[in-house]
Amino acid sequence: MKLALAQLNLTVGDIVGNVAKIKQTIQDAKNTAADVVLFPELAITGYPPEDLLLKPQFVTDNLTALKEIAKIGKGIAIYLGFVDRQGTNLFNAAAFIENSKIKTVYHKMNLPNYSVFDERRYFKPGNKVAVVSYKGLKIGLSICEDIWIEKGPYIQAARQGAKLILNINASPYHVGKIKTREKILKQRAKQIKCPIAYLNLVGGQDELVFDGGSMVVNAKGQIIAAAHQYHQEILIVDLRAEGKIQPWMSETEDVYQALVMGVRDYVHKNHFSDVVIGVSGGIDSALTLAIAVSALGKEHVHTIYMPSQYSAEQSFRDAQRLADKLWVPLKVMPIEKIFKAYLEELTPNFQGQPANITEENLQARIRGNYLMALSNKFNWLVLTTGNKSETSTGYSTLYGDMAGGFNVLKDVPKTLVYCLANWRNQEKEIIPRSIIDRPPTAELKPNQKDQDTLPPYDILDEIIKFYVVENKSGQQIVAKGFDPKTVKKMIAMIDRSEYKRRQSPPGPRISPRAFGKDWRLPITNGYTGEAYS
Amino acid sequence: MKLALAQLNLTVGDIVGNVAKIKQTIQDAKNTAADVVLFPELAITGYPPEDLLLKPQFVTDNLTALKEIAKIGKGIAIYLGFVDRQGTNLFNAAAFIENSKIKTVYHKMNLPNYSVFDERRYFKPGNKVAVVSYKGLKIGLSICEDIWIEKGPYIQAARQGAKLILNINASPYHVGKIKTREKILKQRAKQIKCPIAYLNLVGGQDELVFDGGSMVVNAKGQIIAAAHQYHQEILIVDLRAEGKIQPWMSETEDVYQALVMGVRDYVHKNHFSDVVIGVSGGIDSALTLAIAVSALGKEHVHTIYMPSQYSAEQSFRDAQRLADKLWVPLKVMPIEKIFKAYLEELTPNFQGQPANITEENLQARIRGNYLMALSNKFNWLVLTTGNKSETSTGYSTLYGDMAGGFNVLKDVPKTLVYCLANWRNQEKEIIPRSIIDRPPTAELKPNQKDQDTLPPYDILDEIIKFYVVENKSGQQIVAKGFDPKTVKKMIAMIDRSEYKRRQSPPGPRISPRAFGKDWRLPITNGYTGEAYS
Repeated sequence: MKLALAQLNLTVGDIVGNVAKIKQTIQDAKNTAADVVLFPELAITGYPPEDLLLKPQFVTDNLTALKEIAKIGKGIAIYLGFVDRQGTNLFNAAAFIENSKIKTVYHKMNLPNYSVFDERRYFKPGNKVAVVSYKGLKIGLSICEDIWIEKGPYIQAARQGAKLILNINASPYHVGKIKTREKILKQRAKQIKCPIAYLNLVGGQDELVFDGGSMVVNAKGQIIAAAHQYHQEILIVDLRAEGKIQPWMSETEDVYQALVMGVRDYVHKNHFSDVVIGVSGGIDSALTLAIAVSALGKEHVHTIYMPSQYSAEQSFRDAQRLADKLWVPLKVMPIEKIFKAYLEELTPNFQGQPANITEENLQARIRGNYLMALSNKFNWLVLTTGNKSETSTGYSTLYGDMAGGFNVLKDVPKTLVYCLANWRNQEKEIIPRSIIDRPPTAELKPNQKDQDTLPPYDILDEIIKFYVVENKSGQQIVAKGFDPKTVKKMIAMIDRSEYKRRQSPPGPRISPRAFGKDWRLPITNGYTGEAYS
Repeated sequence: MKLALAQLNLTVGDIVGNVAKIKQTIQDAKNTAADVVLFPELAITGYPPEDLLLKPQFVTDNLTALKEIAKIGKGIAIYLGFVDRQGTNLFNAAAFIENSKIKTVYHKMNLPNYSVFDERRYFKPGNKVAVVSYKGLKIGLSICEDIWIEKGPYIQAARQGAKLILNINASPYHVGKIKTREKILKQRAKQIKCPIAYLNLVGGQDELVFDGGSMVVNAKGQIIAAAHQYHQEILIVDLRAEGKIQPWMSETEDVYQALVMGVRDYVHKNHFSDVVIGVSGGIDSALTLAIAVSALGKEHVHTIYMPSQYSAEQSFRDAQRLADKLWVPLKVMPIEKIFKAYLEELTPNFQGQPANITEENLQARIRGNYLMALSNKFNWLVLTTGNKSETSTGYSTLYGDMAGGFNVLKDVPKTLVYCLANWRNQEKEIIPRSIIDRPPTAELKPNQKDQDTLPPYDILDEIIKFYVVENKSGQQIVAKGFDPKTVKKMIAMIDRSEYKRRQSPPGPRISPRAFGKDWRLPITNGYTGEAYS
């Protein structure tokens, strides 16, 4: 039995485009003499279609598309994800199409409704295990979560004689996820003594990145074929032989490539070609720029340096050196004159109040206005440069440095920003050493340093990991040896910044818990995080 | 049997504050010689606690609080919502506490996971109907959705001899909701020939408004007691007699009061006392100001008029007249000088491109910067003034007029803005007639009118209702008699504006579908809304 695992980059909602890609792939698979071609979970609609599913016409269109695809299935079998409908009930479904006939429709039995998933909002769970006979082989059908669950339907399928399990996925990336997938698949295959063909989606969709890395595991729990991460590919596997095994990337490269794909797909799938980035001479904008160039090519990336009276000379030198190394031009647009004009208009209304965060935010907002003006004038998408340490603590200006369409490092803590910069510099210095070595500063008042306000980033990022990713309480974090005052202050900052995050642009998720679909904290929130006594 | 329905305004996460309020209310109920006092769904945590539920310490704190409350329950029964935990499973639960002893814990059996609800994300459904005997009466326990469902647990409770159903709620408002509740409760009571005591939460929580309007329906399906909408109240009912029946508000007043409560609670529960509003002389900012004054009192509302070279004299006159009628001072802060300063800096970078939306957005963004500067300097929350017609079509400037903490009219279409303004003027003209009569304009270029870009608002708002609220397709809307080109253009505008809405501040939900928790459309979205062919 020869399988073709179509690890495609599809687009949510673009039924017409997805169908064209699926049809072309079926032709390609036929040309390789494959017996079955697999497509990802909800391939026709893209994943996750979210509230598009509440539009009855959208579901109808996807059903029409399924029939159209089936028509070209002569001489091959197709296992394809789509949305099924019975009355008003929807199902996360997959059709097994043999020789142009829809032979079996399987309804996903295990619907994830945690983390970034809301499948219970849309779908009813299926209640029937599906095993099809094809070319003398019994094949068990499953979708994504079905294989993650202990005692999932694959067990019953094996009992009913299945000698192969097909599992189609839209499994979003986070650090280390591919190893988890590999481990679970090996376990499952050994448990049921049956090979599993695991196909994943590839591509970015708003905050989610699907990393590909499809694989086939044999009945002994060994990988016999593995596809690229972050690339479209049709992985061809003859079940009797070992196929191509693409080794997985290192964890740091993995994050970098996830960010690159996240940016590229957000920009292109939203019909932009070019982006603009405000570079400050600091490490966050430097890494953002490097990623953007990797994603889009240097000719599609525009950079602006926007100095104020508080900008050090080193900042400009570093920004210029960075731009030179990446071969992108650097435009300089000072903000001082406008800042003064604001102060002249505003100060009479400030009733003698002392300078405070107001004046700092104003500078950041003038820069935001510049970037948005360039965006409006030239149709460049603004990439923002804040990192997860800043997004967590609210160390950023709403409508200022937060203004833009996509926040590349939104889920990347500062300590990981440094790792990624060093990784990027491995072969050749792209991000100037002086940027990496310089103590971080927002340059919004004289001699400002991040560490005037925040604890050292290695400490802050640990606190963020425990509090944001792992839902630990302040007491639990203190028990790990952190300073109680620091923990209390950081938790308060994180909680208080919810209103800012709610108005922040999306950014690619790379951790098990990012600010986005899996972060639904109330803004109005009286919980102090301190234990009730 | 004497019931006390404690229609309280609680705060999400504020376990300490909620417990204090609950304890005080238990004392008050004892003073009225009530037999049972009812508290809303999840009273201890507030509703909806969202991802606070993922913090184990938060759940523990709520369990500690439950025990503490039970202690003061001597001589009365308490029916109270809280979060129960068994192993790692959570339940949306309610305790029946008799004479300080937790006699029965009921687990909500029907967990809504549609619209604004995500209960399956957190809770497991209960599987056991609960009937308690108290003072010789069998009482069926239920929570919210349990009574909305046909064949809900109230039927089994009645079969088991229940002569009273307690139903505690956190039922969010939308237009007409109270009549739906009344109808369903009457049906249910008649169906099972048993009285139902329906207690609702009251108060604003981010985008949700809980409107109160608790009621008791007798076995014949007649209302025998009804509480105020939008006010805290302990509704005391002797089941043998008719109690106080507060008549429901008219639909327009209902919306107005929902907005007032939404604003007041958002401002106060987030520890602000004052707000600032940019008034333009137009109807949206006028109504926003009137609502803010109703919510917070005139001394807590600050207004700024920010004219440009495109502002008509009438705008200032109208803004001043409005401010005078509401007794709030009007500060004038022109934007022209700063606008010119921006153009001087930007134009050399515009490479001879003609003026376009860029220059319009800049003006709106200078105004946004002014408002945020005042917010930062004086700790005033910025109320934004956009309406639902604008939010839908993206007829607004991100980081400009969209900049602020709470968007009062976010879910109010323009046609309803006029209704509300006229309703507000019923007793006395508050919003000057000239504002109501003037054709709407953004005043961002010479002689601009909304209707240069948008269809008449009565048509636009109908299209929005069909497309946004009812998920109708373009074809279906055209079939209702609308111009195909207009429908296509408006749908494209609505779809394209998703990125803006994602960065917009929250605002009170008053329709069955608002932009917020119940609007989860992808930004990256290839669906054109046109039927697949």
